[in-house]
Amino acid sequence: MAEKKQEVELRIEKVWERREEFLALNPSGQVPVLEVSGGPMLSDSVAITEYLEEVYPDPNLLGRHPEARAETRRLVSWFDQKFNSEVTAMLVHQKITKRLLSLGEPDSMAIRAGNGNIHMHLEYVAWLTEDRRWLAGDEFSLADIAAAAHFSCVDYLGDVPWDEHPRAKDWYARIKSRPSFRGILGDHIPGYPPPKHYADLDF
Amino acid sequence: MAEKKQEVELRIEKVWERREEFLALNPSGQVPVLEVSGGPMLSDSVAITEYLEEVYPDPNLLGRHPEARAETRRLVSWFDQKFNSEVTAMLVHQKITKRLLSLGEPDSMAIRAGNGNIHMHLEYVAWLTEDRRWLAGDEFSLADIAAAAHFSCVDYLGDVPWDEHPRAKDWYARIKSRPSFRGILGDHIPGYPPPKHYADLDF
Repeated sequence: MAEKKQEVELRIEKVWERREEFLALNPSGQVPVLEVSGGPMLSDSVAITEYLEEVYPDPNLLGRHPEARAETRRLVSWFDQKFNSEVTAMLVHQKITKRLLSLGEPDSMAIRAGNGNIHMHLEYVAWLTEDRRWLAGDEFSLADIAAAAHFSCVDYLGDVPWDEHPRAKDWYARIKSRPSFRGILGDHIPGYPPPKHYADLDF
Repeated sequence: MAEKKQEVELRIEKVWERREEFLALNPSGQVPVLEVSGGPMLSDSVAITEYLEEVYPDPNLLGRHPEARAETRRLVSWFDQKFNSEVTAMLVHQKITKRLLSLGEPDSMAIRAGNGNIHMHLEYVAWLTEDRRWLAGDEFSLADIAAAAHFSCVDYLGDVPWDEHPRAKDWYARIKSRPSFRGILGDHIPGYPPPKHYADLDF
């Protein structure tokens, strides 16, 4: 929304409470949900981002040609599905969700797996940006936003080994310096402060 | 592809073998992958279907307006993510994948969960088609294709309780009678025949 210079009012939804009013908005019970003022109530991140591309096409975050858009969408799915199940879900679920919901001790096997899996993804970011300026091509896109969303969640836990992956770190430094990313870096989970480098542009 | 009257040559990829030539085409190691003759190599089902919509817009399988397209995409995600994890993955993984790959006995708890979860999805199909002709609206769309793909996998196992959900059954009967669906219903897993009603249009 910030990249498209659209104002948005953020609201927290504790999805695990399965509030009836929220389930009426989105029967899947998941976030994100976007209420467009004077417009529809949308849910699902792909449906929402594609809608925003259609209704607010400037700046273009998908790509100019069908093939470029396919590459952006492939990478969005890479991070939202593959990275999520191999890294984010393992680490965030074990370290944050379990603590917030008092679901017991973190599973050290899952944490070790997440910490191991992230290296392949950092190498993939490095490989992609070897001859592209951004992940899906020379223009900043939804692929960078999806990837940065996941990396920032894991970085909040201090679990991204940036120093072992300088090229991926360079990509993430460019993400962090975008004005659209400032608010995200200032957002904190009460009682769980991020490491010092988290919001530091020179990390 | 059949809905768009595009010819396609199907090839089987045993993804669990992680063939190097295949990983070079799609480093995520997943299907589907589409090689467009004289065009790009695409992967990820969302990236592929959106590409096909852009390049072969007739018939339109997404919807005519941004809001209608958002509804189609929301439902594609519903079936490919939510239905998949709650139903397809549980039943197909336990009953087929484990057997094909000699991964041990099926887990009866997972099977029971999948068999329980499917009722809510059948009720959701019934609810959606109460005042819509197809799942995302009055026109046949990618939402119907995604849903039918998952239901047909589970139906191949004989695990869809159609008779308890007559309205969902009516929707699926209309899917089965589409010419585009014939080839799918004729496709069999060697050594694992489907139940008699599987390909029957009057089931």
